[in-house]
Amino acid sequence: MQYFFYENLEGSAFAFGEEESKHCIKVLRHKRGDTLQLIDGKGNWAEALIEEEHPKHCSGKITKRVHHAPTMPYHFTLSIAPTKQHERMDWLVEKAVEMGVHCIQFIQCKNSERPKINLERLHKIAISALKQSKQFYLPTFKPLVPLETALSTATQDLKLIAYCLSAQDQSLYAYLQQRPSHIHLLVGPEGDFTPAEVALALENGFNTCSLGPHILRTETAALYALAASAAVLGQTKP
Amino acid sequence: MQYFFYENLEGSAFAFGEEESKHCIKVLRHKRGDTLQLIDGKGNWAEALIEEEHPKHCSGKITKRVHHAPTMPYHFTLSIAPTKQHERMDWLVEKAVEMGVHCIQFIQCKNSERPKINLERLHKIAISALKQSKQFYLPTFKPLVPLETALSTATQDLKLIAYCLSAQDQSLYAYLQQRPSHIHLLVGPEGDFTPAEVALALENGFNTCSLGPHILRTETAALYALAASAAVLGQTKP
Repeated sequence: MQYFFYENLEGSAFAFGEEESKHCIKVLRHKRGDTLQLIDGKGNWAEALIEEEHPKHCSGKITKRVHHAPTMPYHFTLSIAPTKQHERMDWLVEKAVEMGVHCIQFIQCKNSERPKINLERLHKIAISALKQSKQFYLPTFKPLVPLETALSTATQDLKLIAYCLSAQDQSLYAYLQQRPSHIHLLVGPEGDFTPAEVALALENGFNTCSLGPHILRTETAALYALAASAAVLGQTKP
Repeated sequence: MQYFFYENLEGSAFAFGEEESKHCIKVLRHKRGDTLQLIDGKGNWAEALIEEEHPKHCSGKITKRVHHAPTMPYHFTLSIAPTKQHERMDWLVEKAVEMGVHCIQFIQCKNSERPKINLERLHKIAISALKQSKQFYLPTFKPLVPLETALSTATQDLKLIAYCLSAQDQSLYAYLQQRPSHIHLLVGPEGDFTPAEVALALENGFNTCSLGPHILRTETAALYALAASAAVLGQTKP
């Protein structure tokens, strides 16, 4: 059954905004008295009953609520330079949410070709991916900041930087075998990090990390690392 | 430097078709006497000299040739049901090539929503991804066949099937730790494999395999497995 997104599941009622109302009433043709499943992106799932089936302001009462613990036994922060084509960031966000990510931060690097990012659009894509993959935790998005800012505020246990010339460095898999609880990965723009940027990252406690022998696009590098982390760290069963 | 694709690097000359000629002469504005780097998707890299700079039939001679050994120490065959939106298969192919895959086979399942696939289009996307990621081996593509045919012709060591209810089964990572040399993974359509299809796969020596607790889209499931395999098996360094 389809999930609906509603940010405030603490109270006893829900009142959808225009978009979710339209989707619920006009697209999925739900009626007064129908039961819905709601998520808030903060771990809560609720069962709710439609009382007003209005296509612009559908509302009702919450009949049951369950809090879910996070499914991911590790924390992943991705700092990434936006790609020139925004479609590549769209699908990165969709796939990152499906695979599991806690925070996506956008960074401005010397070779960045795109100086801005539409966070509202990416937030919507993330909600849609969350519903589709039946998860309960929405990642946080941080606006575009200069690389220096991202470096100086990084507090994670395992801080990694992947760049094109790092193929000979320690592999991501070797780092994952140390079973870190918090990972922070930096992925550079299409033109890569400059040597000065890599040096600055190292000064700030980041380690260079190989993502294998192939040259990966920006968004592929991020996906590779998210998938490998989910496969190695995300399984509670052996 | 950019790679050009030319299927026959065995001889002493090259003669591009219309598309590669246009790209080389009109888009990148190469001239007579320029040096190019060519790949054939079969492990060969060559240096070549333009002799005729024609925008429709650019040709020249091959001046140097190097054969590269495969970079991937394992073999991965992906059998996947085409998604409803062909864009999702387009980017799966791009990402699969970047991460590393040997064979992509398309399967027709009971819940498949798309009865055909444009192999020529996907072949072009694969060539483009190969050039961009500076690799030498193009995966093979196999046309859409009924699942039964794919099952009965599978000969790989490690035969896996991923489906939505397999989250409790042995994890992909546990299988990868056995360091298989040949993997064959089946990924079903948006509506998933039917229980009868899963049973048939098991009869044919396939093992159910968990890709973690989240419900992944068809193309995400394939990507997750390709990335995890590359991370765990693809690194020659520890």
